[in-house]
This record gives sequence, C-alpha cells and structure tokens, in this order.
Amino acid sequence: CSQPRFCDFYFSYSKSLCICKTGYQTLTTDKASITCQQCPTDRPAVIKDGFGCIRCPGTVNDEGKCQCPPGNILGESPITGLVYVLQESPVHKQVVWLQVFSNLTACQALGNMCAMNMHSFSGVSTDACGLFNNIFRSRAAMSSTQDISYWRVNLPWLYYGDEPGLASRVLQTDPVPIGFSFRGRNKLLAAVYNVRGGFLRWEQVGGGNLQCDLSVAELLGTHPEPLFYDVFMDLGGSENRKLLPLPTLVYNQQYNGRFINQESMKNWYLSRRMFVVDTLSGREKSLSSLPKVIRVASSIKIRWLVPRTQEGQIFPPLMTVVYTDVAIRDINTQTVTTTFAVEYEMDQNEARIKTDTALGVMGGVAVIYSLLKTVSWKRRIASPLIDVKTMLTFLLFYAGDLANVFFSVTVGTGLYWLIFYKAQQFVSVLLPLPAQEEQFVTYIGCAFALKAVQFLHKLITQVSIDVFFIDWERPRSKTSRTVQAAGEPKRDPSPVSIWRTYFVANEWNEIQTIRKISPTFQIMAVLFFLEVLGFSNLALRDPWSTLQRSSQAYTPSYSLMLRYGLAATLWLCIGLLQVIFFTVFHEHFVEDKIRQFVDLCSISNMSVLLLSHRCFGYYIHGRSVHGHADTNMEEMNNNLNRESESLCGQRGLLPNTEIQTFQVSLTNRLRSHYDRIREQIDRSHGPSRMIDACSANQFELRARGYQTMNYFLGSIIDHAHPDMDYIVKDKLMFERVIGMEFLEPSEKSIFYNDESHSFSDVLFYGNEATLLIFDTLFFCVVDLGSQSFVLAAVLTCVQQMIFRLIRNTLGRKNLVSKTLVDERFLI
Amino acid sequence: CSQPRFCDFYFSYSKSLCICKTGYQTLTTDKASITCQQCPTDRPAVIKDGFGCIRCPGTVNDEGKCQCPPGNILGESPITGLVYVLQESPVHKQVVWLQVFSNLTACQALGNMCAMNMHSFSGVSTDACGLFNNIFRSRAAMSSTQDISYWRVNLPWLYYGDEPGLASRVLQTDPVPIGFSFRGRNKLLAAVYNVRGGFLRWEQVGGGNLQCDLSVAELLGTHPEPLFYDVFMDLGGSENRKLLPLPTLVYNQQYNGRFINQESMKNWYLSRRMFVVDTLSGREKSLSSLPKVIRVASSIKIRWLVPRTQEGQIFPPLMTVVYTDVAIRDINTQTVTTTFAVEYEMDQNEARIKTDTALGVMGGVAVIYSLLKTVSWKRRIASPLIDVKTMLTFLLFYAGDLANVFFSVTVGTGLYWLIFYKAQQFVSVLLPLPAQEEQFVTYIGCAFALKAVQFLHKLITQVSIDVFFIDWERPRSKTSRTVQAAGEPKRDPSPVSIWRTYFVANEWNEIQTIRKISPTFQIMAVLFFLEVLGFSNLALRDPWSTLQRSSQAYTPSYSLMLRYGLAATLWLCIGLLQVIFFTVFHEHFVEDKIRQFVDLCSISNMSVLLLSHRCFGYYIHGRSVHGHADTNMEEMNNNLNRESESLCGQRGLLPNTEIQTFQVSLTNRLRSHYDRIREQIDRSHGPSRMIDACSANQFELRARGYQTMNYFLGSIIDHAHPDMDYIVKDKLMFERVIGMEFLEPSEKSIFYNDESHSFSDVLFYGNEATLLIFDTLFFCVVDLGSQSFVLAAVLTCVQQMIFRLIRNTLGRKNLVSKTLVDERFLI
Repeated sequence: CSQPRFCDFYFSYSKSLCICKTGYQTLTTDKASITCQQCPTDRPAVIKDGFGCIRCPGTVNDEGKCQCPPGNILGESPITGLVYVLQESPVHKQVVWLQVFSNLTACQALGNMCAMNMHSFSGVSTDACGLFNNIFRSRAAMSSTQDISYWRVNLPWLYYGDEPGLASRVLQTDPVPIGFSFRGRNKLLAAVYNVRGGFLRWEQVGGGNLQCDLSVAELLGTHPEPLFYDVFMDLGGSENRKLLPLPTLVYNQQYNGRFINQESMKNWYLSRRMFVVDTLSGREKSLSSLPKVIRVASSIKIRWLVPRTQEGQIFPPLMTVVYTDVAIRDINTQTVTTTFAVEYEMDQNEARIKTDTALGVMGGVAVIYSLLKTVSWKRRIASPLIDVKTMLTFLLFYAGDLANVFFSVTVGTGLYWLIFYKAQQFVSVLLPLPAQEEQFVTYIGCAFALKAVQFLHKLITQVSIDVFFIDWERPRSKTSRTVQAAGEPKRDPSPVSIWRTYFVANEWNEIQTIRKISPTFQIMAVLFFLEVLGFSNLALRDPWSTLQRSSQAYTPSYSLMLRYGLAATLWLCIGLLQVIFFTVFHEHFVEDKIRQFVDLCSISNMSVLLLSHRCFGYYIHGRSVHGHADTNMEEMNNNLNRESESLCGQRGLLPNTEIQTFQVSLTNRLRSHYDRIREQIDRSHGPSRMIDACSANQFELRARGYQTMNYFLGSIIDHAHPDMDYIVKDKLMFERVIGMEFLEPSEKSIFYNDESHSFSDVLFYGNEATLLIFDTLFFCVVDLGSQSFVLAAVLTCVQQMIFRLIRNTLGRKNLVSKTLVDERFLI
Repeated sequence: CSQPRFCDFYFSYSKSLCICKTGYQTLTTDKASITCQQCPTDRPAVIKDGFGCIRCPGTVNDEGKCQCPPGNILGESPITGLVYVLQESPVHKQVVWLQVFSNLTACQALGNMCAMNMHSFSGVSTDACGLFNNIFRSRAAMSSTQDISYWRVNLPWLYYGDEPGLASRVLQTDPVPIGFSFRGRNKLLAAVYNVRGGFLRWEQVGGGNLQCDLSVAELLGTHPEPLFYDVFMDLGGSENRKLLPLPTLVYNQQYNGRFINQESMKNWYLSRRMFVVDTLSGREKSLSSLPKVIRVASSIKIRWLVPRTQEGQIFPPLMTVVYTDVAIRDINTQTVTTTFAVEYEMDQNEARIKTDTALGVMGGVAVIYSLLKTVSWKRRIASPLIDVKTMLTFLLFYAGDLANVFFSVTVGTGLYWLIFYKAQQFVSVLLPLPAQEEQFVTYIGCAFALKAVQFLHKLITQVSIDVFFIDWERPRSKTSRTVQAAGEPKRDPSPVSIWRTYFVANEWNEIQTIRKISPTFQIMAVLFFLEVLGFSNLALRDPWSTLQRSSQAYTPSYSLMLRYGLAATLWLCIGLLQVIFFTVFHEHFVEDKIRQFVDLCSISNMSVLLLSHRCFGYYIHGRSVHGHADTNMEEMNNNLNRESESLCGQRGLLPNTEIQTFQVSLTNRLRSHYDRIREQIDRSHGPSRMIDACSANQFELRARGYQTMNYFLGSIIDHAHPDMDYIVKDKLMFERVIGMEFLEPSEKSIFYNDESHSFSDVLFYGNEATLLIFDTLFFCVVDLGSQSFVLAAVLTCVQQMIFRLIRNTLGRKNLVSKTLVDERFLI
C-alpha cells in the first residue's frame, strides 16, 4: 500500500488504498481491497491511474508504465488501448485531444483549466468548462464516487448540480453532525494538485484572519505554476479523520455571461476546487516569458452558518472566492493584496423578525399613548379644535414615545446578545456580522434622533412657562389692604420689601437644572466600569467573558451591538442606582432641594403659580402661618421656633392640612382675566409704543400691573371672587397614571392635591427619565461612531454642560420677563 | 583557507585565516599570512591546533593528525613531542594531566571547567580556575593574542586583570567608536564552544527581552553537555564585521570566598566566557546517570551604558550573568525560569546631582519665603511670641512651599525627559531605568504629601474665618437710629427686614467653592488629550513621538517619569488655559461671581467684614448709595436705573471713589472690642448655662448681641469712634508681592485699597494655584500607582466632589455660627 489515489474521495485518507503490483492493472476497488489482473502481452504497460493496460510508443519503465520521449507527453486511452504522443505545448492547447481521450490525469488537467477559467461556461461555446461538462454528462452512466452524484469516477469534482435552489439546500438543510464549540478546533484541510492534475500533498488551512500585501516578483518566484486546492473540513479531529467537502462559491463565475454567484442565493451555482495564484495562463508565446497578467484569489472567505440550536451544530461552511486579474506592469514594485478570513455567521432573520415584531407592537401602543397625551394636552390648553398645531404636538409626543420604543428594543437586543453570547459554553448564538448590525445601528440612530426631538421640545416648553410669585405680605400699617386693583394706591410709609421675592426667585432660578442624579458622577462611574475595571472587554467579538486581557493576546474587533448593549445597560443601571440613592437616601437624610423650595415659600410668605399650559399648571401654597415674614431676625427665629413646636397652624391651603402643592385646572374665565392683567405687565414688549423713551415711567406701569396681579391671584386663592372660585380635590389613581384630568373645569377651577411635587415637571428634576435616556443614547451614539468610550464620556459631559447652560440662560430670561425680577438678582 | 581558528581573537572572522597543508605544522601567523614547515619523520602528525608535530600512539588519519583508539582521548604536548593516551573519564578528572601538558584543546577544556565553576578561585587551592591562572602566569612570556594582554596564545580568555578599579576603566573609559541609534541594529554575536574546547559555530544573540520557564526534562534533552559562549558585539554591521568582546560580570564569582562581584564596582573582577546550562558537572559516578543538580544561567543581562553626549556613543556593554543551582527532584514537573534582558542605561548621576542641587537651592529659598510668611502671619494675629504654634505654622507654610519646590523640580524633570527623549534622532539621552526612577517617585510622593498638608491647612483656615454682615438699613420711622447698643431697644413699628441679610448670606455661601476653572471640564479635557487623541502613547518607553500606534505593533512598557511629565504638563497647561479663559473672557463678558457678590452687597445695603486672622481681614463696603434698599420692586428698579444713569453718588467707601473692597489691618483695641461683642453672640456655646431650657429667650440675647455688633461696626466704618478710627491707603507694590504689611496698626486701623478682590483668598476662588497643583499631584499619584489615566481621572473627580462637599458643609456651619443666619436659608 502506498500514497492515496487521486481521483477518489478521501473520506478517510489515513487508510490509504492499496495498489497492484507492477504489470498488473486494477480492476475493481472498494475501501478495503482491490482486484488485480495481469496485463495482456500486446498491451504490457499500465496506465497512470492503474485502471487499464496500454501499448507504449517507447519503453516501459521500472514501474511498469510508459516512458515518454523528452519533450513529449503521454495521452492514454484505456478504452481503445491506444496511445497518442503529442508535442508538449502551452496548457491551453491541451484541450485539443482531451475531448477524444478521456483519461484520469487529462481530466484533472481539464478540470484545473476550468477552475483557472473561474468555472465560467456557457451552453454553446466549447471552452474548458464546457468540455468538462460534456465529458461529465457523457459519463453519467458510470458510477459516482463516494455516493456523491456530482463526482464521477476518474473526473475531478468541479460543480454541484445546476438545479435552481440547490445552493440553499446544500448549505442550509442538514447540519454537520458534530458539536461545534469555539474552544475546540474544526480544522480545514486541502488536497493540493498541480496543474496537470497530480496530487501533491495535504495542507492545513490557516485558522486566523490574514491579510497580506504580496510582492508580485515574489509571487512569480514562489508560484511558477498554479496549485489547485480541494478544501475539506476535518470533522473527526486528529485520531479519527473524517472529511467533509466545502462547497465553494466563485464570485466571478459566469454562466452564459451572467455573474450568477453575485445574485441571490437561489441562482448560485456552487463548485469545488480553487487556485490561489495563476501565473501560467497569462504567459504569451512561451512558458518562459513573463506573464502579461496574473490571476489571484484576492479574497477567500469561509463562512460558517450556525443554526440557532442549543447543541452547537453547524451547516456546511461556504467558501467564497473572489479572483482578481492583475495586469503586470513592474514586477519589482507591484503588490497584490489578499485576504483570508473565516467568518462565523448565524441566520439572523428570525431575530430580525422578532425585533421588527416587537417594534411594530410597541410602536402601535405608543401611538395610542401619544394620542392620549395629545387629548390631555388639548384639554389643558382648553382648545377643542384639531388644527396643525395639534397634529404637530401629536407628532412631538409620538417622537418621544417612539424613541422609548426604539430604545427599549435596542437595549433589550444588545443585552440579549451580551448575556447569551458571552455566557455560552457551546455555540448556540453567534454575533451578527458587521453587515447585519447595520439595521440595529439605524434603530439606535432613530432612537437618538427622536429622543433629541423630545428633549428639545421639553426644553422649549420649560423655558416658556408662565410663573408668578404671589406675595402675601401686607404692609404693617394696614392701609393698603383695602386698596383695590383699579384704585389709586397710596404711598405706603414702609413698603413691603421685595427681597423675599428676590430670594424665592433666586432659588427658583437655581433649581432649574438640578437633577435626580449627579451627571459628573454618572459619567465617571461608567468610565470606571468600562475602562478601569475592563468591562469594555465584554464587547469584544469573542465568546469569553473575562474582564482582564493580556496585552500580548490577540484582540478581536469590537461588536457594535455588544458595545451598545454594554454601555446602555451600564449607564442605565448606574443611573437607576443613583436615582434610588438620591431619592431614598440623600433627599431624606441630607437635602431635598425641591422640598426646601416649598419650605422657603412658606417661610417667606410667598406662593408660586406655574402655568405650563393655558389652563393647567401648578400651585405652591406658601402663605406664612405667622401672617408676616418681612421682619427682623429675632422674629423670624421666633416664628420658626413656634412652628417647630407646633404652636401655630399648619401650612396647607385648606385649614388643618399640610398639603402645599397642587396641580391646577383653571377655568377659561379665570385664565382670560389672568391674561388681561398679564398683558399690562408684558405691555412694554409690544412693538409700537410712543412713550418708550421714558423707561422708568413705563416700568412703573408694569410694576403696577404686577401688584394688580398679586392682589388678583391672592384674592382668587382667598375665595374672594365667587365667579372664579375653585375647589380642592384628590386626583383619581387612573388620572395620575395616564397623566390626564377627566373633569373639565367649567364653573369652578379645580386644585388637585399633589404631594409628589409634580411641579418639578417644569424643571429638569421632574424629567430625569428623558434626560437619562437622552444621555445614554448620546453616549452610545458617540461611542458607536468613534469606538471610544472615553471620547463618548468627554462629549457627553460637554453636551450636558451646554444644555445646562442653555436651560439656565433661557430659564432665567423667562423668569425675568414673567416676574419682573431684575436679572442681577438671579445669581 | 577554511573555517576560522579557535584560540584567536576574531576581530575579523570574515577574513578567515589560512591553514597549512596536511603534514605541515604552522610556525607563525599574522592576520594576512602564515608560515608552514613540514613535520620531521619521527613526529609525522600535526597536533590539533597545527602549531606543532607529534608522534602518534596509533595511526595518522587523512588530515595528518593522530587517530585515537576508541575509548581513549589524546593528550598532545607540542613541547616534548610526546603523546599520552588516557582512558576517557568524567570531565572533572581531566585536570590530573592538564597541569603537566598544556595544550590548546586541553587548555580550552580547563577554561571551560573554570567557567563551569563560575570563575571562582582562591589564592591557595588548586581548583580549575587556580590551575588556569597558574598556566596563564607561567605563559606570561608568550605573546598575547590580538594585543589583548589578558589573552594568551593557545589559552582561552577567561579573566580581565585583577588590578583594583580595572572594571570601571574597562567599562567607562573609552566609548565604542560608532554612532549608536535606536533605529539601527547593533548585533550581538557569540562564539560557541563545546565542553572540550572545540569551536562549534557563531550564533546571533537575541535582541529582545525574553523570559521563559523551561522544563527540566527538556533541558536535559537539549543540553546533554554544556556549551560555552564568548559574546562579542558586532560593531561594523553586516558588510564590514568588527567584533568587540563583551566584559562579563559573573554574579556568583568568588575570590578567596568573597562574592566580589556583588560588591561595588571597584572590587569587580571582570571575566569572559559563560555557559547557559551545565547538566554535566552534577552527574555522579557515570556520565549516563541523571545529574543530582544542574547549574543554569538564570539571568543574563546585557547593559549598555550610554554617555551623555550628542553623538550617540556608547561604552562597551557589560554582561551580567547570574547562575543558579537547581537540585533535581522530578525532571518531568520541575521548571527553571531564565531571563534574558538587554538594558540601555545612562549614567544618571549627573542628572540626579542637578536635580538635588535644584532641590537644595529652591528648598533654601522656600525656607526664607516661609519665614517671611510666618512673620507676616505673626503680625496679622498681632502676637509677638514665638511659641509652639508659631513653629507649627512655619512648618505648615514650609510644607506648602516645599511642595511647590518638589513639584516644579519633578515637573521640570519629567518635561525634560519628555522633550529630549522623544525628540532625539540619535541617542543622546536614555530614560532612567525603573530602578533609577524610584527617587523621582519619592519626590512626587513628597510633593503630594506636602501639598495635601497645605491644602488641608488652607481648608481648615477657610472654614473657621470670622464673618459678619453689616446691615446699613435703618427703619424708615427713624426711631432706632438713636438707640445705643446698651440701651433698651423700642419695638419698631416696622422692623428692618432680615431677608437682605439672608440673601447676601445665601450668596456668600454659594461662592465658597467656585473656582477659576471648571473642574469637570478640566478632567474631561485631560482625558480627551491622553486617551482619545493618544497623548498617552508619548509616555511609552520608546523614542518615537507618534500618537497613534497600531494595535498589532509591539507596545513597550510605560515610563513613570514620562507619564508624570506628560500628565502634569497637560493638566497644568489646560488648567492655565482655563484660568486665562475664565478670568479674561468669561468674567468680563459672561459672569463674574465675585464681582456679582460685591455688587449685591451694594444693592442690598450690606457690608461684609471677613476676619481671616485676629487683626487682619477683608472688608466689602456695600452701603447703598440710595440710603435704603429694603423697599418694593418699583423703588428698587428706580434706584438701579438712577445708578446706571449715574444720577447718584459712587459706591466706594471714600466719597467719590469706586473702591469697595479692602484689606484691613485692625488695631488690637478694635479687635478686643469686637471680641467682647462677639462673645455675647457666641455665648450660647458656653458649656455651663442654667437657663438653656429657654432657647428662644437665649436666641433673643444673641440676636441683641448681633444688633449691637451691627451698630458697632457700622459706627466704626462711619468714623464714629475716634479711639478706634481707621485710615485708607494703598498698599505698596512690594507689600503686595510678598503678601505682608509693613505698617503695624498701632493707633489707627488701616484699610488698604484692594481692587483685585483679594477677599477671595478665604474662598476656593482665591486659591486656584494650590487647588490646581493639588489636583495635578493627586491625578499623577493615582496614575503612577495604577498606570491608568482613566482611574486617575475618576478618583480625582471623586476627590474634588468630596472636598467640595466638606468645604461647603463646614463653611455653611461656620457661617451659621458666625452670622446667626438659619441654616435653612443657606440653600
């Protein structure tokens, strides 16, 4: 027994076949044994594959085969027993006689020429592949090798069948019956043939991803003639070798002039056998001349398609080969770039469908929710018409809700990959390839864009709300209590000091941008986890979940999906922990800025009316229980002491209650009255005033309007206007949940008890969810673009600074214009 | 001409020496030619080195040399012409006859045995090295090889001379005459000999740093007998090979029982020739038995000492070898760790001396400066005694100044290395090795520790200053203007509102921790430069100054010095840029919190007295130009308008001046008076009060004290106390520079005009330099400890948060206790 035979299928090449003795031809062979027969005397020589005897034109050599004269090649025909001797000629001439005398090596050579022609053929012409197919069809009667119908005895296996849809059947029907694990090795082996079809050796195919620039001069030196590779996958490992042929997709293959393999899978025409460099075909005139052009397999990609099962099974991998023709200009400087990559791919269609379904369903719910919000908004602005503004507002609400949908779906997906990909022992899920991640990235982009729209909308709404500080303090001399809004106010001997208003306005200005988290700590904590503790290594495209990597070890690229899942989850988790810490611990034991503001209102004898919509807003009742707050330190301290010892009444709006904060639904009548007085305060903003020159005088008018408003609102709260009265009630649980009022304030305005300080909705404080998600998305989007968590952190920090600055500046301007408090006091 | 000869110095081995024909002995040889002479007939064979003829005990072989019978070895003696045939024996027996018959190969073998004995010898015993030295001395008359006096003809070169101080002469006198550049390659070559002294081959010695764990079993397999290496440096490159022998320091070498090579350089005894593994000497009984012990060169270090010149010259490198004996227990599991390292070292003594000089000089200046500060401090607290507290304060001042000295020296050094190491084309400076960096790191540690002391001192000083808000407002009814501090105050019909005081106190509380930079932006910017733009790559131990490194390329380790220089410089630069931006642009065009506070004082009719020392402090004059500030919005607006139109007086303390801020030097009398009133305000803090139960009553007493203080300070400012009067003057330029007052306020207090708002010295704002340097050092120290800029950034941020919190909390407590403003108003 000697080295294995070549036109056979090496399902088990370690068990080599036996050969017959010299002068004996092989009759039949199976895996275990062969039958031999001595050659007849008129045909004493055995042909090269051993399956026939022939008559020699020259002598018989030691191995019992024909010896060719120099410069000649042997054409063997076991059927006729004839031998033709031809002058050696360039390879592309060899097809002249192959057609007639099919024989093993010649067939191999023909197959190789077809491979060199990139498997292209058409139904009419008689090129190498056409000839090969003719021979293939003519030998249909002969048995196939190894039960593979595409592989005829004595012919190389070049093509799979050309039935439509065969490719997907071959690639996606039967999983290979082995467990597939990242930790194990599934080696690739290639049988290597020379251009004449002779078997040379077995070669192992490298497992990593390689990209190299090869010098053309070197290529010509190392590859004087092309080698041909039949690539197999070794299923059994080193002891028990079992080989599976790899279907190959030649990207450049033409069929009747069409690049069928560049079309969809149902048109693919799979093949076998490839070459790496062909420096032979491009030589003109003689074999020793320099080729005009060489053909290189510029990209070889082996793609494993792993089905979504738990057992780690795989489908037969597909090898895709792209050939490139390189015209030779200057062999010394020219280089050729080649890529060899092994990709593991999983059919992500199912996942995509699930994602899209989730998006669809949740998007539908979001429509309903946004509609509800729009209806609520319509009520609050007391406008029954459905106009363009309504549509626009609906779209703005919908943008926010849709952003949440995109966000939750993408974070869920990212987290899913993070958990299932990183935790698996056997391969059951594989990461989507970069190309498959595109849709995911689009979703993130949508989420970010929509969230940004929502954020800006909220920002604009917040910096345009209506604020009024109601001062309950009355001059001590009790003269002005009877002065009516319309009457001529007398000069008080000691006017009520404005400094309490300044103080409250100043504090209100300061709480505009406080948040439920510390943004700086948030960024630092995320950076700490990602970059210091090494969580960022979890986003690498390998299935290990270790945080520390040796710097020497090979580092794979990052997966966008994992990066997103990791960063978003981490950001949200730390954010939530911070919110919990601040709302549960910090605000109860250290300080609660919102609570402090409400207390300040009470101590300073000031109420605050915030109107976020035309007929809806918030009211902070701050009437001092001591009657006066504009006093000296001694009395202030006495008041505070009396209150802490419960010697005076409670602070609530209703007698004997504690509730100071309300949501208010105003009647149209009240709002109209409010607007008329507001007009007087705002009047200076009108464009056409002739007395603008005298700004001090003008301010006096506005200040008088301010005092009118003060008295008007005070009297409303005091129930002094029976036609604009109000009632106080609790909100229904369901009303709270959907954020809508069922009752319409037609006769009386309605004050809803609101212990949860929901007036913070007009501050950053009450919109932490929106801000947190916006920050998360901003961080992730920058990171996806730059692949740098540090840059993302830096830019997020800058972004927060900028928006805080904008919010503070615009909020202050709004406060100045609405309350007449000079900007110099809002520091 | 054939392969080179072995006992010669291969200064130019490419030009191989010629050998004589068979049967001819070599008489003389120089670099170019040899003289040969035919052997006499009675001694027909040529000895192995060719320099003599002998009579053979057996036959003469084809090469004209003696053929030994199997199992025997040849002892040649060219002097006597005798041949001794000895039974082959373990190597350690071979010295029995070497003493008598010096010959080339035997000498080589003896040299190797000496090398195996780690070159150790003593003057009295007759071990291998002793024997070698005897022979060496006995052949003093014979010429040396290659003009090297330590290298006798026919003997291996084992030792340099034993004169004291020879080592430093050999190593540090003559630089090797080649340009030395990191970009070029200076290869190491070794001549390899077997244990019998036969030359085997030339080997190239690896250039990188290697550390491996070798299995003992493998070692025994691959090193059946030791190989000996003579290591050379190839000076000429590949074309024109020139070899320089490398002096070797055998760490374990003993001389009369002393480990001389572990002592200082003047005792060193340099040698040549080393081995890697000796598995031979440890075999007992027979050569085939397993060794009990093997000797391994566990550490081989080749250190290049580069002098500080511009031409990139080097001294001959020193090779240090450490041998370790490994007792064999279980060859299959045992491993041996070996290290091979090439180090480039530069004599840093000069640099260290310069650094230390700088430290000494600047430290001395710092003493003077600190003394000056202490003197100034003594004046300001008006205490002439030199007591423990004075000493302590001096030490605290000195800590700060010394920290600055350490800081500037270390930053300067780091920056120096960064610039000169990274910018050089030829090697003129080499980074200090990690061991040499220790002192540098110690300096940084000192700087940080001292700076921390200074910072804490400042922090404690700041949170214990004396503050009082002087309210200029008088009741409108003009009744209380005449009420004296001691008199019974009447109940005012409308008391002066305390809210302006609250407002000013609240603002004062808020500016406690503002800084001239944005700390968050600072950290983010530094991170951005280091981690996003890749500046951190500048700290790598290689001379390239590129920011982007390919992830595949070899990454050297970081240099602590470069990291420090880089981080500190970057931090300082960005900090300075920020300070410039904020002081030049932001405070002029956006907002200046300090200026705003001064303005607020004016508008609110409040002055602020800050006493940082007993008799020194700051005064912000805030008396309203309108007489009253406790009024309604209309009048406030009128006032502001009048002022903006310059219709009223100017705000300054002196008439027709603008200067509102002063440094004040108080007289002792004024301070004593102040303290007496202060006592009344602070009284409740006294430990033994019987009427504590009635806290409201007690507060009333304190509030009365507060009012007394208010009137007292007001009258002082109004010059109403002739015995505690004050003058206003400018500070001298020199006084400003050294921060000290030359005049002592004996009769009158002195108010120094201070337009630069130096009262911010009691805030974070006025101590930006200290804070910036402290932050820089904190960042750098964390980074040096963790080698992670991100971690350093995170911890610096947390540190800033913590200290800001501490400063705010303590500052607020201090403000509450000093001004009686309720904590609830400081929000």
